[in-house]
Amino acid sequence: MTADNSIFIGNKPFMNYVTSVVMQFTTKNAPEVIIKARGKFISRAVDVAEVAAKRFLEGQVGMKDIKIDSEEFENKEGKQVRVSTIEILLEKK
Amino acid sequence: MTADNSIFIGNKPFMNYVTSVVMQFTTKNAPEVIIKARGKFISRAVDVAEVAAKRFLEGQVGMKDIKIDSEEFENKEGKQVRVSTIEILLEKK
Repeated sequence: MTADNSIFIGNKPFMNYVTSVVMQFTTKNAPEVIIKARGKFISRAVDVAEVAAKRFLEGQVGMKDIKIDSEEFENKEGKQVRVSTIEILLEKK
Repeated sequence: MTADNSIFIGNKPFMNYVTSVVMQFTTKNAPEVIIKARGKFISRAVDVAEVAAKRFLEGQVGMKDIKIDSEEFENKEGKQVRVSTIEILLEKK
């Protein structure tokens, strides 16, 4: 599996991400797609996964694995900051 | 396991939820705690789980399972609305 199958959730319109996920499975025939997000976009990543898997690809795609983790980094002020991350692995049935 | 071990994430101050999770494991000696959230609070639920498990209970508690799902309900205008949900199961090691 290559990095091409990862979709990183951010500020774009919601349906852009859903369409990307659906197209990975349909047009590009990917066996798996990973939806990734950090911080406040985690809720959105779950929405994208649910809408793609249950509304658009119902019966064709399932949730294989969900991982949550944290990343630590130094912000501009030199302060140590922690941000949560999620990875949702969808798999063709 | 009883419903007492579930913590539902909402609008209260962040550390209230972290403290609740930590106390379930320490004071109440619970073997498992489920962190639940809907919609925009999903990101927060992941933050609570990460901070509780990695900062406060490091080495003592692990992520056992993460489930995401959707609930459909009718809003005040009679329109069908979908909301995503998450359940994060933490377990004493």
